[in-house]
Amino acid sequence: MTKQVAIVLAGCGVFDGSEIYETTLTLLRLDQLGIGYRCFAPDVAQHHVINHLTQEPVEGEQRNVLQESARLARGDISPITELEADDFDAVIVPGGFGVAKNLSDFAVQGDNMQVLESVKEALIGFKEEAKPIGLLCIAPVLVPRLFGEGVAVTVGHDPSVSGAISAMGGLHRSCGVEDIVVDFEHRIVTTPAYMLATRISEAATGIFKLVDRIDEMMG
Amino acid sequence: MTKQVAIVLAGCGVFDGSEIYETTLTLLRLDQLGIGYRCFAPDVAQHHVINHLTQEPVEGEQRNVLQESARLARGDISPITELEADDFDAVIVPGGFGVAKNLSDFAVQGDNMQVLESVKEALIGFKEEAKPIGLLCIAPVLVPRLFGEGVAVTVGHDPSVSGAISAMGGLHRSCGVEDIVVDFEHRIVTTPAYMLATRISEAATGIFKLVDRIDEMMG
Repeated sequence: MTKQVAIVLAGCGVFDGSEIYETTLTLLRLDQLGIGYRCFAPDVAQHHVINHLTQEPVEGEQRNVLQESARLARGDISPITELEADDFDAVIVPGGFGVAKNLSDFAVQGDNMQVLESVKEALIGFKEEAKPIGLLCIAPVLVPRLFGEGVAVTVGHDPSVSGAISAMGGLHRSCGVEDIVVDFEHRIVTTPAYMLATRISEAATGIFKLVDRIDEMMG
Repeated sequence: MTKQVAIVLAGCGVFDGSEIYETTLTLLRLDQLGIGYRCFAPDVAQHHVINHLTQEPVEGEQRNVLQESARLARGDISPITELEADDFDAVIVPGGFGVAKNLSDFAVQGDNMQVLESVKEALIGFKEEAKPIGLLCIAPVLVPRLFGEGVAVTVGHDPSVSGAISAMGGLHRSCGVEDIVVDFEHRIVTTPAYMLATRISEAATGIFKLVDRIDEMMG
């Protein structure tokens, strides 16, 4: 049986959805290793729509997270309510501001944030079955709220995000863009990706390491 | 001086814009080779918006090609009217239906199609300076209208698209997903990508070959 990995998306675009390159590079590496994958996203309205040319919110425009995530999945995606840890060997959450705006309210609430209930249920399922969980870029900010205190993660060096992770009871480890942090006990792997990357090839190096490690941990 | 390649985008999403994986894989390979790049797109309304979950057009919704392409470029993009062949060593056009809907009207007009004037001017500039031009997936359909008869390209094996290319005076060569077609005389390189790809790693192999060949041809 081919190993199967679930991918959790948050829209399509760095400023209001999932980071496009991080998602694509994750899928590329999984496929190069012969690992199957399926994408999931919540069927909810986006927090807002950002014009990526001006980086300003677009007044009055609404988009749906599942529909926009479908762009990143070439149409091949399911609602996250259908994601069962039993059906997969691991789960990976790419970054992008959508993680802090659509999958949680970290962008607004900081360390008072909550994780969207459907996302929480899906990810806790993987933790309970001790299946490896990979998180990229800003996505590790979800970890303390989801899995409680004392889990080691990285978002690179960003003082405000790493401070919020610490305030929520998480352990933050500094890490370079081409490297990963592994919490072996909790089976969680994180990499800074576009929290630090200035070039796509740098992001690729860290993301490929993360996927390779998740592959090893799936056994 | 680092070599510089211009990338021409057509929106963000396979069914109404530029194919996301093809674009990302092109940028990844350029960056891995130490080649600089800049993205460009026309500042025009999209032909339509496709809900990528249902693959149906969304009634009454309008999006702008430059703004949506900016998602694929992480905000770092310019209007195609600012693209001058003098400033670059080569140009690459990723695929996706946006090429046939926004950069041209091939999706509606078939072999009676016209290419958007701003796109035509930019690409003809590269041809006149004998700078290499790469086109992925459906994008080679632009070639006979842009550069006249007798230029060899591939879109894989698709009989209707290759038939239209022939009807417009182009030469179509069949080609596998992991390979490229090179017209040495006209300095044009094409690869089928998602005209044929069933896996992202297959698309990557052909696209990496195309970028590597463009790199060699830039000298």
